[in-house]
Amino acid sequence: MIVLFTDFGLEGPYTGQVQAVLYQQAPGIPVISLFSDLAPFDIQAAAYLLPAYAAGFPPGSVFACVVDPGVGGDRPGAVIKADGRWYVGPDEGVFAILTRRARHVECWRLPPPATASPSFHGRDVFAPLAARLARDGRFGAGSVACTADARPEWPDELQRVVYIDRYGNAITGMRAAVLDDSATLRVNGHALQRATTFTDAQPGAAFWYANSSGLVEIAVNRGRADRLLDIAVGTPFELP
Amino acid sequence: MIVLFTDFGLEGPYTGQVQAVLYQQAPGIPVISLFSDLAPFDIQAAAYLLPAYAAGFPPGSVFACVVDPGVGGDRPGAVIKADGRWYVGPDEGVFAILTRRARHVECWRLPPPATASPSFHGRDVFAPLAARLARDGRFGAGSVACTADARPEWPDELQRVVYIDRYGNAITGMRAAVLDDSATLRVNGHALQRATTFTDAQPGAAFWYANSSGLVEIAVNRGRADRLLDIAVGTPFELP
Amino acid sequence: MIVLFTDFGLEGPYTGQVQAVLYQQAPGIPVISLFSDLAPFDIQAAAYLLPAYAAGFPPGSVFACVVDPGVGGDRPGAVIKADGRWYVGPDEGVFAILTRRARHVECWRLPPPATASPSFHGRDVFAPLAARLARDGRFGAGSVACTADARPEWPDELQRVVYIDRYGNAITGMRAAVLDDSATLRVNGHALQRATTFTDAQPGAAFWYANSSGLVEIAVNRGRADRLLDIAVGTPFELP
Repeated sequence: MIVLFTDFGLEGPYTGQVQAVLYQQAPGIPVISLFSDLAPFDIQAAAYLLPAYAAGFPPGSVFACVVDPGVGGDRPGAVIKADGRWYVGPDEGVFAILTRRARHVECWRLPPPATASPSFHGRDVFAPLAARLARDGRFGAGSVACTADARPEWPDELQRVVYIDRYGNAITGMRAAVLDDSATLRVNGHALQRATTFTDAQPGAAFWYANSSGLVEIAVNRGRADRLLDIAVGTPFELP
Repeated sequence: MIVLFTDFGLEGPYTGQVQAVLYQQAPGIPVISLFSDLAPFDIQAAAYLLPAYAAGFPPGSVFACVVDPGVGGDRPGAVIKADGRWYVGPDEGVFAILTRRARHVECWRLPPPATASPSFHGRDVFAPLAARLARDGRFGAGSVACTADARPEWPDELQRVVYIDRYGNAITGMRAAVLDDSATLRVNGHALQRATTFTDAQPGAAFWYANSSGLVEIAVNRGRADRLLDIAVGTPFELP
Repeated sequence: MIVLFTDFGLEGPYTGQVQAVLYQQAPGIPVISLFSDLAPFDIQAAAYLLPAYAAGFPPGSVFACVVDPGVGGDRPGAVIKADGRWYVGPDEGVFAILTRRARHVECWRLPPPATASPSFHGRDVFAPLAARLARDGRFGAGSVACTADARPEWPDELQRVVYIDRYGNAITGMRAAVLDDSATLRVNGHALQRATTFTDAQPGAAFWYANSSGLVEIAVNRGRADRLLDIAVGTPFELP
């Protein structure tokens, strides 16, 4: 299947235009929107979400990963094969954490596109590439082996909020497996304890937990953590 | 077809993760999002929408109905067969009005899941079950016949707003067929008369009407009822 | 493929109800949401978007174009064939610019529907028609040849904002090809120069450019033009 991981939005034209390319060039292959509302321009936030949310997809899945503030400039495009899944997109760091954690990684750099809108490589470059990978399991010549932009300055675990979901829960860039059950998380002056799930907390109470994709998430039972704790994408937290 | 009836949102990860399970386990079967923005945690609102909006779907359709504030706790899961359609989801009342009105109902209670994320049974329990029902027309052993949570304290017609749509129209939990054409509906001090459709009212004027799924709906011709009348999900109305 | 071009929203029930009709009556044909968040009731804005965004779709594509404040009244429905693509929807002007620019146009007027909800012809009239066109390449008898509502009072290029996208970029109703590279665009007192793409401008700087569908678009590099320049759908601009 082809998986969209973008900041395009679903209701406007961009995801539909990408889907039109995919359905024409990879007929019969399901297209799923995993994230279409990544924080605009925030490549680092996307980079920490990608390995956590890609892990549940089957081998051969093709991810179109497009958070692309540098579109039309000289930032390179890449194809990554990591642990049996394919990823395509502009290579400004979105693959850094994925490739750091993967057991087997291959990477190819794309040549500058001959013809493409200078503002929509998602439609004109990466969608055709994703369609070909999903259809044929390989892509065209003209690419050279590379190493994905590795962002060595980025930490293994990112202590900030990377996504706010529809319930107001705050997903962070830290994996829950690295924390003890007794760890206290401090955000905006609030000290939060760990819970297993929502109903372990009192209604209206804030807590942290290991979310269903393995990341540390800040939540409130039957309430909105973003409003109660005044947090947004980018808000840092501490582990005193 | 498989029909999603949830509060997950479309743009974030949850609907995509459910679709990934469905496309893998029920390949070739269309998946439709009927509602993905039900009011979070508001099981009663969902319960009055479900029979009205499910009625238009063909026999054999499978509805994944997940508004699940109690996920990971001891609330039971259920499979319902009602008038030829299947429904799966946590059983805390979402099926109460559907089963009260249906002519033929069967119900099975699910055992506690052996392995599932404590916060995402939509993906780990109900999506696989919906896929199996859509694919095979039956589900696995291990369930016991039951009666769905019947909520006898809930009225047959709910006099409050259960959904605000993109236009600002307010869908209520009351069926229009139980009201006379001359009924006056009173909400937040405004007295509203019935109209057949939008163009029967003056631009900017508020009215009520039988919406395209048979529910009483409060609307404004070329305007937003939610803002003009200061109403939201939960706002009550009267029939003096 | 079938392409949705509406103001229905995706998360609520309407797009899902239309998709349910399409998947039943045109099985196996992909359905794409191109726009589901057109400005409610703003037929003129939709009319200038339609030819720009339809141009990228293959021959035989069927567009369901439904911005329908007059639903249930006496406004007519139409089927248009323009340059090899089909379009169906209420004919109150949404096809005016499309048909003005097309090289080959045919138009048929629909009879008033025998049975349809007075508030949802998108589901009851236009979705079945789109399904039939996508499946059979033709539609039923009972229609008469016509000319689409031509709106001669509307200009060839519309100097106002017709859509705000998820990034806050403002798409206008003017084609970029009619402007010189040196044209200055004035909006709310701001004078904007042309750029080729986002990275040509300083972060936080506003500019205009030819967007990926050929329309003049007002944008800000790594920022929101709608907030920075206080613009919304309907905001006019000048070319001094």
